[in-house]
Amino acid sequence: MSETVTRREALKLGAAAGVLAGAARRAAAATGPKPIRFGFIGVGGRGTGLLQQALAHEGVEVTAICDINEAHLNRGIDLVRKARGNEPAGHSAGPTDYRRLLTRDDVDAVLIATPMQLHGRMAADSLRAGKHVLSEVAAAVTVDECLDLVRAQKESGRTYMLAENVCYYRANLIVLNMIEQGLFGELTYAECGYVHDCRSLLFNGDGSLTWRGELARQESGNWYPTHSLGPVAQWLGINRGDRLVSLVSRSSPAVGVKDYATKRFGADHPTTKLPWRGDSNTSLLSTERGRVIELRFDTSSARPHPTTTYFTLQGATASYHDREAVPSIWVDGKSKEVAWQSINDYAAEYEHPLWKRWAEEASKTGHG
Amino acid sequence: MSETVTRREALKLGAAAGVLAGAARRAAAATGPKPIRFGFIGVGGRGTGLLQQALAHEGVEVTAICDINEAHLNRGIDLVRKARGNEPAGHSAGPTDYRRLLTRDDVDAVLIATPMQLHGRMAADSLRAGKHVLSEVAAAVTVDECLDLVRAQKESGRTYMLAENVCYYRANLIVLNMIEQGLFGELTYAECGYVHDCRSLLFNGDGSLTWRGELARQESGNWYPTHSLGPVAQWLGINRGDRLVSLVSRSSPAVGVKDYATKRFGADHPTTKLPWRGDSNTSLLSTERGRVIELRFDTSSARPHPTTTYFTLQGATASYHDREAVPSIWVDGKSKEVAWQSINDYAAEYEHPLWKRWAEEASKTGHG
Repeated sequence: MSETVTRREALKLGAAAGVLAGAARRAAAATGPKPIRFGFIGVGGRGTGLLQQALAHEGVEVTAICDINEAHLNRGIDLVRKARGNEPAGHSAGPTDYRRLLTRDDVDAVLIATPMQLHGRMAADSLRAGKHVLSEVAAAVTVDECLDLVRAQKESGRTYMLAENVCYYRANLIVLNMIEQGLFGELTYAECGYVHDCRSLLFNGDGSLTWRGELARQESGNWYPTHSLGPVAQWLGINRGDRLVSLVSRSSPAVGVKDYATKRFGADHPTTKLPWRGDSNTSLLSTERGRVIELRFDTSSARPHPTTTYFTLQGATASYHDREAVPSIWVDGKSKEVAWQSINDYAAEYEHPLWKRWAEEASKTGHG
Repeated sequence: MSETVTRREALKLGAAAGVLAGAARRAAAATGPKPIRFGFIGVGGRGTGLLQQALAHEGVEVTAICDINEAHLNRGIDLVRKARGNEPAGHSAGPTDYRRLLTRDDVDAVLIATPMQLHGRMAADSLRAGKHVLSEVAAAVTVDECLDLVRAQKESGRTYMLAENVCYYRANLIVLNMIEQGLFGELTYAECGYVHDCRSLLFNGDGSLTWRGELARQESGNWYPTHSLGPVAQWLGINRGDRLVSLVSRSSPAVGVKDYATKRFGADHPTTKLPWRGDSNTSLLSTERGRVIELRFDTSSARPHPTTTYFTLQGATASYHDREAVPSIWVDGKSKEVAWQSINDYAAEYEHPLWKRWAEEASKTGHG
């Protein structure tokens, strides 16, 4: 999704490129040594950025593009033509035209970058059509869609990958590497959040709602958990030795969006009068091994957002937090004193292999 | 309680002195213009520190001291004699001898600085004996004790004050003042924690447990909430317009204390083999007005502790957080850009009256 780019820029640059390249490699391994042929479903702001990154990779071809917005579609086709010289097929005949793209023999895999409410159904349809899938976050928005997505992946045997880029932030990968090498000892607790004033993204210019606005109006819980929960799930080995077993959740009163809409559209605008949901949602998750994860979400409150995502991780022999200026760590026996150190102090020894492999290539691409 | 003194020193110095002076004033108002005559119950490390601060205030006399440890008692009596020339009565005949102190006519109020498990009963007994009470945190450790304390205060009509010093940190008072002056608008969410590696305080030299150790062994929840919840309760007007109505709580596995005890006393020491409780506890509290408070407690994990307590507060028009280097705030319409500012930028305009009144006097006393 489109975000203000802050100090993380360099990290994110690499991250999305790494995801894309990783998916291409996986899919390539399944289909042989030929370049993987991608169909892009959704080339708005986010999809177009990912398209540009894809075109920077030799192992990727783009053979088809779908978007209900013809201007977006044509911009995408132009980008491919200029970068590669080939003319991808265009699909723009309404909201189900992506299914026509899925019947194409020259598409091995799809990248889905449509509004979030569409991801689950489109991904399941794509898998059942025999395509590998790289999907933007979140994977789906209802439990039924999640279950159907799992079924579709199992039935099809195709690769499904969620393009959760925060898992590939450099610091998060170093922490993952340190965990795997035993520096944290037994893990007990993690904290993560996505706290970012996104109110300007909820509305079109006329006050009608974007897909984010629809979600903010409909759902009072955490409808955007993956940027925060993704790295923590990797660290704790969720579904790889541990699993989530319970959740409690609380939402605060709704104040921020109504205040914003009042200022922007006036108190009498229909949008302002909508029954907005809670600004801040906090969930406590427990795992089978008894660990606790605190997960926060707030995109509706008036506030600065220096980091957008933040993390805390506690183990028996190390502690990590990434909230403000510098991701900080303390490792029992390695840190010289009981004081936080920059995670960068450990980069030389614990850089993640994935980062080493992709850092240079990623630096050539745009923000992902 | 005794803590490593960090950047907060100047704040805390003032804080405890302010509490003490405030209690003295309140009690003095109830008994006339004479100096208030205090009996000290418990003069270990913490009680002795508070005794020294009390002796710095002209409005306070110390007429009696109680401690089961005779060496502590005599040290306290000496301090009074040297500072004021009077000889306070000494009570040291076992764990119920404080009740003899409570029968004294020359004691208007007591300061209770005993192990936490004793606070509730001693405070209720003191109120019923007609004494005003200034009690160290926490107020009590069981629900029955809490209810009895409320009953005792109502029956007696005497003043009860919890000596929660973090409420009087300068930044917390500025925030309180800003809330009262409307800068935050409607409040929605608060976060607070006491996260501090206190494992060394759980044990005596021989591996037996201190009162903190007993609590850490017995209780898996948050047995030390007041430093974190105190300021938040003031900010949200708990029991002054809003009230707590529900709570859910989760504790992580217990790893830290066993690890510490193993290293200090050996794997075979009886203390190491105790069934320690969860390292990290997180609670979600909801208020009648729908606000959510996230409250964390961890004194058992291996980690640095740069701030010990931390806070976040979200309102419709301002956001505050105090986690690391500098307490930071953003106020819609006052902050020049959407970026965090030091709370000190607002001190000139929003310094709390209580801080202004006591800052100079507080600077003369020791760490509280």
